Amino acid sequence: MKLTILGCYSATPRTFTNPTSQVLEINNHIFLIDCGEGTQVELRRNKIKFSRIQHIFISHLHGDHFFGLIGLVSTFRMLNRDTPLHIHGPKGIKEAITLQLKLSNSWTDYPLYFHELTNTESEVVFEDDKVIVSTIPLQHRIYCNGFLFKEKLGDRTLLINEVENYEIDRAYYRSIKKGKDVILENGTVISNEKLTMPPKPAKSYAYCSDTKYDEAKITLIKNTTVLYHESTFLESHNHLCTRTGHSSAIEAATIAKKANVGALILGHYSTRYENIEMFKEEAKTVFDKVEIADDGKVFEY
Amino acid sequence: MKLTILGCYSATPRTFTNPTSQVLEINNHIFLIDCGEGTQVELRRNKIKFSRIQHIFISHLHGDHFFGLIGLVSTFRMLNRDTPLHIHGPKGIKEAITLQLKLSNSWTDYPLYFHELTNTESEVVFEDDKVIVSTIPLQHRIYCNGFLFKEKLGDRTLLINEVENYEIDRAYYRSIKKGKDVILENGTVISNEKLTMPPKPAKSYAYCSDTKYDEAKITLIKNTTVLYHESTFLESHNHLCTRTGHSSAIEAATIAKKANVGALILGHYSTRYENIEMFKEEAKTVFDKVEIADDGKVFEY
Repeated sequence: MKLTILGCYSATPRTFTNPTSQVLEINNHIFLIDCGEGTQVELRRNKIKFSRIQHIFISHLHGDHFFGLIGLVSTFRMLNRDTPLHIHGPKGIKEAITLQLKLSNSWTDYPLYFHELTNTESEVVFEDDKVIVSTIPLQHRIYCNGFLFKEKLGDRTLLINEVENYEIDRAYYRSIKKGKDVILENGTVISNEKLTMPPKPAKSYAYCSDTKYDEAKITLIKNTTVLYHESTFLESHNHLCTRTGHSSAIEAATIAKKANVGALILGHYSTRYENIEMFKEEAKTVFDKVEIADDGKVFEY
Repeated sequence: MKLTILGCYSATPRTFTNPTSQVLEINNHIFLIDCGEGTQVELRRNKIKFSRIQHIFISHLHGDHFFGLIGLVSTFRMLNRDTPLHIHGPKGIKEAITLQLKLSNSWTDYPLYFHELTNTESEVVFEDDKVIVSTIPLQHRIYCNGFLFKEKLGDRTLLINEVENYEIDRAYYRSIKKGKDVILENGTVISNEKLTMPPKPAKSYAYCSDTKYDEAKITLIKNTTVLYHESTFLESHNHLCTRTGHSSAIEAATIAKKANVGALILGHYSTRYENIEMFKEEAKTVFDKVEIADDGKVFEY
């Protein structure tokens, strides 16, 4: 599982910092999460192949999370994309994108599907045999969802010495990897545990931005491998959190601790701060496994 | 008169090139012309004070000329702008911007005025005592205007030795600068030419992008100090000009020559070309006073 941070600052793009966007590679999928202005340039800079992005998840319709989407949709067309693109985001996103395409008298030559979200309960928004993606309802100033990306458990691993020892026909290997026991010709049952090891643990990634401190989501993200949680403010400005619908570094760390996640990545820093290391320092007073996002940084798990 | 090129490449923003946007400083005004994605970052990079921009002129609603506008409008709000902003552009621009503001449940705290254009004849879109701005109807795939910025002639310059020689009262200086003759107490008429020099010549700037080769605009831009004319293609691709509604370097130079402009600046290069110097070389075969735009370049006249 690999996470590339294209942008992780709040509010406005600046000369050396970008608004929110990130790329998650998980079980052979590449997902784009949020798409602030300039995202397409950051995709190029980070050498992410445009054509591999088939799903884009937009948390909410504040500009620093979606103003780059129309440019990306248009560029895909200019690059002669032909594979489908799915955009998952709040209701209204379709109108915003299609209006702008209409005004330029253009349309996409590739299939473009909008999956508009209105639910305030968690729901599955994408699923195949490798990954399941569901929403994490967040509390912000406008309708907003985080997203939980979960690998599906793979097959169990054959203990090849054991299956050969029992002279099991290869025709049974597939069902054994799926967890089935084996009955030998003499009637002896060989339990699956003797023939296989458990599959690699399924990894998961929870993206929570933007949100004020809200414990309601903890059950959804419990034991997640990695949690990205916004931390717009340091403690010195924690009085701004409630009013603006954002979290402090300590609040993000508190959620991480209560959800017992494997690691916490902080981001969505207010551009008032010159030194983002302070976010890590403050979060560490609550939760130890903290990383800080920065534009262009890559995390692997 | 000072022109700062924020971006001058066509189609999509890339790591080191930007779509169209430029800043014209003329007679104490600062005008932003077109606003491709990333313009607000280029404004910062070129140290243009956001608050000094009160008028934005958008040629047409293709993304590489206006996808940066919503971000700039939003950023102005976040920077607590309170001065009015006027946006001049094709009909539809208001709906595109206001829809996106509405979706983010926000509005500008500063007065925002849209001046939507539908006229296919040239018309005055802004005028005060210093400058007059009018449209230059262009032939592109969608409704498109260039803009002609003209300084107004200033006052004539007093020849101070002469007015003192005639012992003319200071109370008359203002009217003399405006071109009035003077009648002395003894009835003698002193013609204005004896007392003043002509004002500095008024400068003018014509922005023509995007457009195919079209001589109809020549009368509008005749004798302009500087013409910026798009040159998307080199001769090797001139077969694409008509189909795409764009011009070649030689076509831009031909317009410049026929309009007898003082200087020609080329821009809006297709991103297929690695070396933009070729645009200058080809244009020079037709018109000598050619400059080539590039991102971050500043021209002064």
